[in-house]
Amino acid sequence: MAKNLQISLLLDFYGEMLTQKQRDVVEFYYNDDLSLAEIAENEGITRQGVRDSIKRAEAQLLDMEERLGLLRRFEEMLQGLEKIRASAVRITEYNKIHGNVREIGEDADTIASIALALSND
Amino acid sequence: MAKNLQISLLLDFYGEMLTQKQRDVVEFYYNDDLSLAEIAENEGITRQGVRDSIKRAEAQLLDMEERLGLLRRFEEMLQGLEKIRASAVRITEYNKIHGNVREIGEDADTIASIALALSND
Repeated sequence: MAKNLQISLLLDFYGEMLTQKQRDVVEFYYNDDLSLAEIAENEGITRQGVRDSIKRAEAQLLDMEERLGLLRRFEEMLQGLEKIRASAVRITEYNKIHGNVREIGEDADTIASIALALSND
Repeated sequence: MAKNLQISLLLDFYGEMLTQKQRDVVEFYYNDDLSLAEIAENEGITRQGVRDSIKRAEAQLLDMEERLGLLRRFEEMLQGLEKIRASAVRITEYNKIHGNVREIGEDADTIASIALALSND
């Protein structure tokens, strides 16, 4: 069973829509990297049961992304914030060379730190 | 029945998780401002049926926000982007007064326009 790396990200967004049991199984598998056999032993179900449960949870997560597209939106947001941060860094550098205006330096720092904080939310 | 203004916003985020029928009814009520009686006539169901359907959809939307918190996250993002934009505008102004460095002006414009585009996504 190939691991779909997108599933970890989708879990962050939509995990709370799964049942606790489903979430546990998928987190063991994707975040803690347990094997199907290990999860089966932990949960007291068969290996096939674990596999089915993961498949169902994956399908549900992918369906939610298909409908709501929030991971896609979030990734666009991150790209935009990264460009904003790069521009703020350039402003700081140019400002140091040309004039070193205190207010420009402060606002560039403010922009860079807000962009960073929003990226990490 | 008091209208909950948050519902329109939640519809934007989570509407695709409702059934088509539920979504229609809630959109008629919240976005098109039709009365319960008008919706009942459109849909060929009773006024009480419309009311129940709206109540169920509202509960589902609020539950999804309770679990996923995406509207809250998005609103935090908007506030951050607004601060970024305000800083970029100040940089432009200070730059005009002090030195008018072309590169600083360009990067400040870039920041302001990305922040605006992300706010409107």
